Amino acid sequence: MPAVPKSALSGGSLLLAWQLKDKHVLIVGGGDVASGRIESVLVADARITLISPREGLHTRTKSFIESEPRITHHDRVFAGPTDLDDVDMVLTAIDDVDTTGEICTLCRTRRIPVNAADIPSSCDFYFGSQIRSGPLQIMISTNGQSPKLANIIRRRIENAIPEYAGDAIIKVGELRIKLRERAPGVGGELGRRRMRWMVDVCTAWEMEELALLDNEMMSKLLDDGWEKNRVPSLEDVGGKPKKRSLARVSQVPGLVTLGFVVGAVSTALVMLNFRRRS
Amino acid sequence: MPAVPKSALSGGSLLLAWQLKDKHVLIVGGGDVASGRIESVLVADARITLISPREGLHTRTKSFIESEPRITHHDRVFAGPTDLDDVDMVLTAIDDVDTTGEICTLCRTRRIPVNAADIPSSCDFYFGSQIRSGPLQIMISTNGQSPKLANIIRRRIENAIPEYAGDAIIKVGELRIKLRERAPGVGGELGRRRMRWMVDVCTAWEMEELALLDNEMMSKLLDDGWEKNRVPSLEDVGGKPKKRSLARVSQVPGLVTLGFVVGAVSTALVMLNFRRRS
Repeated sequence: MPAVPKSALSGGSLLLAWQLKDKHVLIVGGGDVASGRIESVLVADARITLISPREGLHTRTKSFIESEPRITHHDRVFAGPTDLDDVDMVLTAIDDVDTTGEICTLCRTRRIPVNAADIPSSCDFYFGSQIRSGPLQIMISTNGQSPKLANIIRRRIENAIPEYAGDAIIKVGELRIKLRERAPGVGGELGRRRMRWMVDVCTAWEMEELALLDNEMMSKLLDDGWEKNRVPSLEDVGGKPKKRSLARVSQVPGLVTLGFVVGAVSTALVMLNFRRRS
Repeated sequence: MPAVPKSALSGGSLLLAWQLKDKHVLIVGGGDVASGRIESVLVADARITLISPREGLHTRTKSFIESEPRITHHDRVFAGPTDLDDVDMVLTAIDDVDTTGEICTLCRTRRIPVNAADIPSSCDFYFGSQIRSGPLQIMISTNGQSPKLANIIRRRIENAIPEYAGDAIIKVGELRIKLRERAPGVGGELGRRRMRWMVDVCTAWEMEELALLDNEMMSKLLDDGWEKNRVPSLEDVGGKPKKRSLARVSQVPGLVTLGFVVGAVSTALVMLNFRRRS
């Protein structure tokens, strides 16, 4: 992908990872779209108040309400300004355009961020096409120009990200915590050395190898690596390297060999045939 | 990449495409980090007030201030609550931890979303690792567990996204506008038919082909496609298909041929040699 020309400083959004831990999100609506919103908000560790008449609930919404203590469900329609008390974010997904407009206006005066499904002009923010694998989250936005291409690109990205990426991130997160326990302190030269060493480990090891780290290997990595200011290999710390899974590279010898065998056999047959006749 | 288990509903962020068109963003600080923030905010069409003593400005920040009428620069430090009047978002990137804390507290009481560089606990949102190519924007977040792996994954994604993806999105965006001019109206059966046809075009055509669309081809595509409820090919509308650039697939015949030739020649040489001796 080419570098972005400096001149193209417009037409985009500000992509953000919004923090909702222990925050309170109001979702108005209970259908298909609302059920997707519920999942995204639960992932971000928020508690949810869901306002929707029971008869309009999607099966997934119902099962979230039944299984999730973080959701408080009110079996009714939006009742007015008091529904917004102590709310940090509002997501609406209802067909009633007038009520949606009323909610958005109330949010605006109270400075509560709001997203109204299908009404882009009323939204403080949009949800792009998303990928999640454990702690790894990816958002693809075409800034409203082509949701379908966003989905096609999402699938390409899914195929490009190895399945062990989420595990690798979890293991590196654990290693960072262990390193900070061993060499505590904020900022300064020690902080910089810690960051450099973690970068060196992540650069020297394949992601697939990082995903194999267990507690014992992490201890050995810190003993023989951090303490000696070097980066041991997976084998050095007692791990067994898996075969590289670079499909494109590994199929090269196979294809050449296939061609060789076919070429050799067919030439041999032709020449033997020629010899028999001569 | 495997599907996410339903149980993993925690530990993440809410990824958002925040809308800043004509909004007012205050950036406190003018160093390296601030210059990156300026670029991200300009892309999202906001106007910026930048507060930073001139002597602390990074070269990139200086050149943004000189070239961008959307930036108002105050050559001083943060002066107190009045600096937050009429501000929609605040980004701080200064070394002074006390001032940062003061700004964040003021923002919290006024419900202004705020990000303080390097102080995660004071942030309403984080910036992940980002990719931009025209209207295409992608964010990768490891939820703070490994910024280095986020960068490694970003590079993999950059390699997986064809360079014409941004152009394809622009062209599809233009085609949608032309379609809406030809078949106007909001919602209903027509809206659904429009959406279905656009999805069909994006599915039937390769992204590389979509990127080749020009005005004339779009008109023909709407005449022969939309009007007749079908999806013509690139050639049907007068375009010349490029050779497919799927490296992995296109190298298969080449490799087999290479093997075949080597196999055939070496077998022939061996057999000719054998024949000469016998």
